[in-house]
Amino acid sequence: MYVYLDTVEEVAEAIKTMKVRGAPLIGITAALGVALHAQKVKHLPREKWLAEIKWACETLRKTRPTAVNLFNALERVLAAASDGPERVLEVAKKIMREEEEACARMGNYGEQFIRDGDGVLTHCNTGSLATYGIGTALGVIRSAYSKGKRFRVFYTETRPRMQGSKLTGYELVKEGIPATLIADTAVGFAMSRGLITKVFLGADRIVRGGYIYNKIGTYQIAVLAKRHGVPFYVVAPTSTIDLKSKPEDVIIEHRNPNELLYIEGVRVAPEGVTALNPAFDETPPELVTAIITERGVAYPPFEDSLPRLVDD
Amino acid sequence: MYVYLDTVEEVAEAIKTMKVRGAPLIGITAALGVALHAQKVKHLPREKWLAEIKWACETLRKTRPTAVNLFNALERVLAAASDGPERVLEVAKKIMREEEEACARMGNYGEQFIRDGDGVLTHCNTGSLATYGIGTALGVIRSAYSKGKRFRVFYTETRPRMQGSKLTGYELVKEGIPATLIADTAVGFAMSRGLITKVFLGADRIVRGGYIYNKIGTYQIAVLAKRHGVPFYVVAPTSTIDLKSKPEDVIIEHRNPNELLYIEGVRVAPEGVTALNPAFDETPPELVTAIITERGVAYPPFEDSLPRLVDD
Repeated sequence: MYVYLDTVEEVAEAIKTMKVRGAPLIGITAALGVALHAQKVKHLPREKWLAEIKWACETLRKTRPTAVNLFNALERVLAAASDGPERVLEVAKKIMREEEEACARMGNYGEQFIRDGDGVLTHCNTGSLATYGIGTALGVIRSAYSKGKRFRVFYTETRPRMQGSKLTGYELVKEGIPATLIADTAVGFAMSRGLITKVFLGADRIVRGGYIYNKIGTYQIAVLAKRHGVPFYVVAPTSTIDLKSKPEDVIIEHRNPNELLYIEGVRVAPEGVTALNPAFDETPPELVTAIITERGVAYPPFEDSLPRLVDD
Repeated sequence: MYVYLDTVEEVAEAIKTMKVRGAPLIGITAALGVALHAQKVKHLPREKWLAEIKWACETLRKTRPTAVNLFNALERVLAAASDGPERVLEVAKKIMREEEEACARMGNYGEQFIRDGDGVLTHCNTGSLATYGIGTALGVIRSAYSKGKRFRVFYTETRPRMQGSKLTGYELVKEGIPATLIADTAVGFAMSRGLITKVFLGADRIVRGGYIYNKIGTYQIAVLAKRHGVPFYVVAPTSTIDLKSKPEDVIIEHRNPNELLYIEGVRVAPEGVTALNPAFDETPPELVTAIITERGVAYPPFEDSLPRLVDD
């Protein structure tokens, strides 16, 4: 499905309703949305034009609260605004190219951890449909496969939005990478049967100390990985790292309960049922083996290793 | 939905396709299926009649491999066959009444563990739609609620078959018990936020040493409960306990991958996706706080406590 977005409101709506999703791609899309608006209203006098840019940034900032790439990208285009509309567009395109390049680099850093015969579990979608490149965790899988390594990918459905079965399934089938879909309930079973030897997944925000905010279900995968001695790798560009925040600062988005009550427009729960629908969860650093970024791999203790990577 | 079953083949099909599910109810349904057939062919000479009963038991035995209630119930009606068709019907009805009575007793034993203010997590469906009575784990919840205790139930969707959202949701709404549906991915989040203070769920088979075979997803809930210090109670009648078997003897049913690829007849994964679909998993005894049966509560070590309950 292709979606054509003509206005800031349409871009905001596409992000809110998850027509566009994945932390890096949300950042890119928002930046391009601001650049689009900057062009549209460039005939306005400077002060009015700047006010329009601020409004566009504000509108887009309010779409989703958890992933930090959105806020980082908007800050960058807003800062460029004082240099005019062409500079805003340049910065938006730069963010896009940086994310593409970051994916390629993370792929190279990460693929060294995959061996022939591995069973690699991933969760949600972290591929081309979530980034502007080969992906984060799925980019690592792509890189390892393209270097000739032979292993099997297991991927969860990722209820409620099913980014696993729908998006990751699509990307893996397209690439011809051997892969098996499992229900979110079957992660423990698959680990206990020795089917999973490594976990690779993405992040929407990583804060001080190495706390990982990622798609709901990540935390329980990390707990199971720890129990089964399975290495747990988080793959995320440094645009996802937010060392200014601590865990208490992060807002976990709760989405519409209807995401649980309907599937493809069909009601799957009886009338009267109420639901709680958190979109993300928190994985504490003690469950994380390493964080793979485009600037290198951070190992525990993340209090030390993350600032070294980010401040370089 | 009501299903009218007229033949052994129809009963077998209803069990296989999960029109009837829940370990106790599968046992009851199979026993009634044999009793139905015993009546239908009662005009046959004794030897031929007995052969028909054996065929009926064999046909029903092959429907599902994991829950032991099925095998126990069939063994009992088969043993009754030497006394003729009326006795087969009596035994089938007796199994039904025993399971109903067992639910009531488990409710009484179990409800003492629920306190005002608790957040009780359950998984799959263990209510009237899985038993012939108030249910096992859901029976405990019903009993506690009917005694005036005030608490909130959290229940998982239970992918892939969604017995949580569809069946448990239905029963809880009908009873007016305060309850919240969560995705299977949100169990860890709910525990980490302190929303869950107890887990109650059922079992399809419990073998020597206290290994629990139950709906896929149970094991990972147990691992999370352990991590968060949340008591984990298994509620199951002694008809579910199989001390003759050890873990290696239990066959974990793998069901059709289409259960993951389609929801309500709508394809939710792209063409080319393959899936692994285990229906049950194994929870080791070290993760189980207690096993609540109609004969009392078994505590670890289950090597000692389970035989004491069953042999009494």
